[in-house]
Amino acid sequence: MPRHDGRQPLDLRPLSLQRRFTRPSPGSVLVRAGGTSVICVASVSSEVPRWLQGAGRGWVTAEYNMMPGSTQPRKARDRKGNVDGRTTEIQRLIGRSLRAVCDLEALGECMITVDCDVLEADGGTRTASITGALVALVDAIATVELPDPSRYPLRDSVAAISAGIVEGECVLDLDYPEDAAATVDMNVVMTGSGRFVEIQGTGEESTFDDDELASLIKLARDGIGRITHVQQESLGADWPFG
Amino acid sequence: MPRHDGRQPLDLRPLSLQRRFTRPSPGSVLVRAGGTSVICVASVSSEVPRWLQGAGRGWVTAEYNMMPGSTQPRKARDRKGNVDGRTTEIQRLIGRSLRAVCDLEALGECMITVDCDVLEADGGTRTASITGALVALVDAIATVELPDPSRYPLRDSVAAISAGIVEGECVLDLDYPEDAAATVDMNVVMTGSGRFVEIQGTGEESTFDDDELASLIKLARDGIGRITHVQQESLGADWPFG
Amino acid sequence: MPRHDGRQPLDLRPLSLQRRFTRPSPGSVLVRAGGTSVICVASVSSEVPRWLQGAGRGWVTAEYNMMPGSTQPRKARDRKGNVDGRTTEIQRLIGRSLRAVCDLEALGECMITVDCDVLEADGGTRTASITGALVALVDAIATVELPDPSRYPLRDSVAAISAGIVEGECVLDLDYPEDAAATVDMNVVMTGSGRFVEIQGTGEESTFDDDELASLIKLARDGIGRITHVQQESLGADWPFG
Amino acid sequence: MPRHDGRQPLDLRPLSLQRRFTRPSPGSVLVRAGGTSVICVASVSSEVPRWLQGAGRGWVTAEYNMMPGSTQPRKARDRKGNVDGRTTEIQRLIGRSLRAVCDLEALGECMITVDCDVLEADGGTRTASITGALVALVDAIATVELPDPSRYPLRDSVAAISAGIVEGECVLDLDYPEDAAATVDMNVVMTGSGRFVEIQGTGEESTFDDDELASLIKLARDGIGRITHVQQESLGADWPFG
Amino acid sequence: MPRHDGRQPLDLRPLSLQRRFTRPSPGSVLVRAGGTSVICVASVSSEVPRWLQGAGRGWVTAEYNMMPGSTQPRKARDRKGNVDGRTTEIQRLIGRSLRAVCDLEALGECMITVDCDVLEADGGTRTASITGALVALVDAIATVELPDPSRYPLRDSVAAISAGIVEGECVLDLDYPEDAAATVDMNVVMTGSGRFVEIQGTGEESTFDDDELASLIKLARDGIGRITHVQQESLGADWPFG
Amino acid sequence: MPRHDGRQPLDLRPLSLQRRFTRPSPGSVLVRAGGTSVICVASVSSEVPRWLQGAGRGWVTAEYNMMPGSTQPRKARDRKGNVDGRTTEIQRLIGRSLRAVCDLEALGECMITVDCDVLEADGGTRTASITGALVALVDAIATVELPDPSRYPLRDSVAAISAGIVEGECVLDLDYPEDAAATVDMNVVMTGSGRFVEIQGTGEESTFDDDELASLIKLARDGIGRITHVQQESLGADWPFG
Repeated sequence: MPRHDGRQPLDLRPLSLQRRFTRPSPGSVLVRAGGTSVICVASVSSEVPRWLQGAGRGWVTAEYNMMPGSTQPRKARDRKGNVDGRTTEIQRLIGRSLRAVCDLEALGECMITVDCDVLEADGGTRTASITGALVALVDAIATVELPDPSRYPLRDSVAAISAGIVEGECVLDLDYPEDAAATVDMNVVMTGSGRFVEIQGTGEESTFDDDELASLIKLARDGIGRITHVQQESLGADWPFG
Repeated sequence: MPRHDGRQPLDLRPLSLQRRFTRPSPGSVLVRAGGTSVICVASVSSEVPRWLQGAGRGWVTAEYNMMPGSTQPRKARDRKGNVDGRTTEIQRLIGRSLRAVCDLEALGECMITVDCDVLEADGGTRTASITGALVALVDAIATVELPDPSRYPLRDSVAAISAGIVEGECVLDLDYPEDAAATVDMNVVMTGSGRFVEIQGTGEESTFDDDELASLIKLARDGIGRITHVQQESLGADWPFG
Repeated sequence: MPRHDGRQPLDLRPLSLQRRFTRPSPGSVLVRAGGTSVICVASVSSEVPRWLQGAGRGWVTAEYNMMPGSTQPRKARDRKGNVDGRTTEIQRLIGRSLRAVCDLEALGECMITVDCDVLEADGGTRTASITGALVALVDAIATVELPDPSRYPLRDSVAAISAGIVEGECVLDLDYPEDAAATVDMNVVMTGSGRFVEIQGTGEESTFDDDELASLIKLARDGIGRITHVQQESLGADWPFG
Repeated sequence: MPRHDGRQPLDLRPLSLQRRFTRPSPGSVLVRAGGTSVICVASVSSEVPRWLQGAGRGWVTAEYNMMPGSTQPRKARDRKGNVDGRTTEIQRLIGRSLRAVCDLEALGECMITVDCDVLEADGGTRTASITGALVALVDAIATVELPDPSRYPLRDSVAAISAGIVEGECVLDLDYPEDAAATVDMNVVMTGSGRFVEIQGTGEESTFDDDELASLIKLARDGIGRITHVQQESLGADWPFG
Repeated sequence: MPRHDGRQPLDLRPLSLQRRFTRPSPGSVLVRAGGTSVICVASVSSEVPRWLQGAGRGWVTAEYNMMPGSTQPRKARDRKGNVDGRTTEIQRLIGRSLRAVCDLEALGECMITVDCDVLEADGGTRTASITGALVALVDAIATVELPDPSRYPLRDSVAAISAGIVEGECVLDLDYPEDAAATVDMNVVMTGSGRFVEIQGTGEESTFDDDELASLIKLARDGIGRITHVQQESLGADWPFG
Repeated sequence: MPRHDGRQPLDLRPLSLQRRFTRPSPGSVLVRAGGTSVICVASVSSEVPRWLQGAGRGWVTAEYNMMPGSTQPRKARDRKGNVDGRTTEIQRLIGRSLRAVCDLEALGECMITVDCDVLEADGGTRTASITGALVALVDAIATVELPDPSRYPLRDSVAAISAGIVEGECVLDLDYPEDAAATVDMNVVMTGSGRFVEIQGTGEESTFDDDELASLIKLARDGIGRITHVQQESLGADWPFG
């Protein structure tokens, strides 16, 4: 039985990565995954956080934000200083995922911030953010004067995808209606060489067993292989990994 | 003497308006004016502010925001709840400018919010926002069920431009380096039929006289005529004014 | 090779649950797991959140907090209104975990809040919180007038534990020094009957493979069986599950 | 046709400036303009803002506030940290206006803050604030040890007034009922020698043309001449300008 | 040995009360006690706090604030939403003191807020605020339509004064230098008929004994008698008490 | 006539002090006074507040907090950054009371913070906090390396109790129902040797006379003698006073 948009269970939505989307920052990527789009902009600063000053290491962090017009009805801006829990969780996840493949000493004493601003939200915004952030990060690193040019600050690529159980079936890359209907929702972050960076599986007022867990992980692993390929094509000759 | 980017005093920067830039909201326009770009997204809600409830009138408001990657160095997000003074001033100006041409009774009891998020900041972000917001507003109004379809809720178009005195010369549409060097800075908002909506002229640690005021207004009036033409071309057959 | 505190890899720390620890609230449990202790207090209110009013369903939520004296050096209170990201993540996890076993319709229109305040923090505070919160929740539900007394509002018990990879070895129930040294950190939430509620596995500036994932899950499943037993003994005749 | 309070279009309200109104600060002026009164207090500090430290220049800034009892009904204090947009705009305008006539190098490394607290609000509070602030500033500067006593830190005086179109007629110095009824509202800040510092003209859900603009500016220029005279009389022998 | 300003231990500073100081609010009193001055403005609103709605009773509350120019160096405004502890304590004391003599049922369902804004701070600002607030309150009550005109909403007058131990001597009405030097500081609030409303005695890094307590209370009682007389003279024929 | 819980007017509620209640901090005391219980945890830090840096003196401060489950209905956490006035007043009182018996020079340059978190609130939480905080402070000081070991940093012990007038009778140590019914409420803080540290007496919408004041102080003095004895027994051989 095909999915509501005609996809098979293991089909990804059309995925594209547009580099150099804006000019002021060295890394700027527009990710589109079906009806979801995110601008990932990587900025470089020579000022590291206080607790790293003088340590000779760099830092990579991320901020996530849904723009007001990214959903219907409009999402009010957070202007009272209360960043909501979901936002905080997502931006911490993006930052951790990037750092998992970073050699922060090789980066030298600098700070890279990747801003992931969601233009259109149709499910999978956090995984699209990670996928795009990697490409923006590569472009930003190209502008950093490294302490040792022979030591590249990324050990591997990283990408992410969601999988879940919808109407009893394990499916890949859920869009918003599927996400809302899912009884189990899983986000998987993996490296280009197929190692786990992060697994987050949640029963939404529901629970799941070992077999379901295994199926979801298999789907995700397969999808991430294809996403890594899209990242590689987008960077072309600038792809820094083997 | 040509300007630092080769323009003559009364030259505008290349201006383009891309409609339907994102999908979730009915009005979505990407404005580009030289190195400045702003996404103007107009959302419609049936909930008017409390003080208007039951009054049978609508409301139009705007929010303005510079995205973190829109400048170098990166502009930190305001997440402490202290919207800075400049932001507040600008979004109040955008909202007032739109309402000056609105017939809020004709709109019926609904609320239109135009979000102006700056992707690239190279001077003139507030005037580009107003120019783009008008087009997004027209597209949003097209989706509103009006109480009286024969009474269109906009009386006229509105657009804006900056003018200023740089190195003793009156010039139009200042980019960031010019804006920083200007001794007098003026923003003018006008209707398509050439009436003033707002004039804000400021001596930056400087003052100006009647002749300089007159020259700046003349430059601005001329520029707004050309900008109105770009708005009209962008909307094509959807241009609702005579 | 034994762990730094003499435990074997699959050993839990000594775990105890002290019911009726404080008097004002119907559920109040002091959880002690080695050097970690948390007060879990469940309060009942007849006021449900706004979006549930009149729906005939209840709600269960949790708040998490580390008390200032729970660590050395003292942890400053958050009194500026910026609940930190870690706190937000943890309290969302606790709430989700409890709701995964809740039949919110059976609860009727009431709101149960479980406050988890950490008195002593030596690793595993979030998993200890979930384990204690279940017992406090059972005690609180006993004071609620249910719409249908024959329909008990919990479908199963729930408990949680951490597992991780420390110095290359998979170990259960990490204390703080182990947590700080772990390359992979996993929190598992399961029901008393052995179904997953939540899995969160994170490589800390590291990655992991399928075999490691399987080992960690096996360890956690085993530990949760023993923890469920401690919960059952603590509740004695009040244990509401088969 | 006379105005609702009997004034002719170009009449100012009775204006008085009471120096040395309070004792702790070197400059303290009570401005009364008809039913509006504002306390302008200028304080001097040796600490300049961070970005000026060591630059050998001073800084002049202003804060504006409406006291709770200044209007009916009472205006709630802003104690949630959200200074409203109108307040921000006004205090930025006052600060800019003072700095436009300041020679900040001549002031030396010190910081002057002028607090404008409105005791009674009956229209024109921002322009009364600027008019009074200049006098408080002169008194405060008299207590500053200047780096070069022969170089006075103010190049000119500054004063402000409103003009507007009420029931189709251009009038000067609007009180609150006129301000509420005006279709066009303009605030003009000028130096004692008649040069513009700032012009802000706004159509209130309305627009205006070149002739109306010219009439309003003429009215304002005339009024500011008379206001400058009141400032000069108030300072008497302490008037520092030619 | 006379005090540093020549007063004897039981001398008050010159005290004056100027009614109708500002026009928008029904009660407005400028209190001057030596170098201290406070504006006490009483506003009346028909909206009582939520918890009183429909109860047929009124409410009286107070807010206290030190204006930025009231001290040297300037006191920064609290614009981050953190009202400091001292401010909170003082405004709660003022409100409690006024309510202690209020018959809130006789007031009917209305809300009176007394704003005490300190123009000049030279010690004793909280006691001067209470003394002035009573007079502003009487003037505000005169504008309230009482449910039963034969039942006056104040049972007695109230006034306040400080006493303390300075260089071993018990003195009345401390100014700022005395307050800073005092080892014991006491604020006493009493009714016109000599009953206590509030006593707050504090050893400032010091302690005191029964005899000292008795002496301070005696001084304060005596002073309040004289202050009540000043209140009575200020209100003249409007003095509502026997 | 006995009180509602059977006590005579001068009876204290059962009072106990449990030292070493939690492990991470050097001082940790659980105070129980009838239905009220408070955890007092004293932490030591080498960082003094900025204004004390380099002064060679220490500082002692306190924070007070009611835990959410300490009352019925549940008390919402303050997570918006608005510490309420009552909390601020109480923690300032606790800190002042401890410092009144402290020799801050003898402490050397260190900072002791005593956190008083109320587990169960049944009246008298502020006085129980002071009583427990003294014991936690003694335990914390025992871990501080004093600049001069022969000079002990506490000059005396300190304890506190409430007294009040309930149904016309003066009673000691009010519980919550008595506190709510009291017309006069007094908190007294005294040293072990019987000197006043702080007296706060308040008429709750009521007033009181000299005789009532004297009776309340006598009751309190008597109660504090007995409380000091409990403190002494709790510390046993560690009691540092004569």
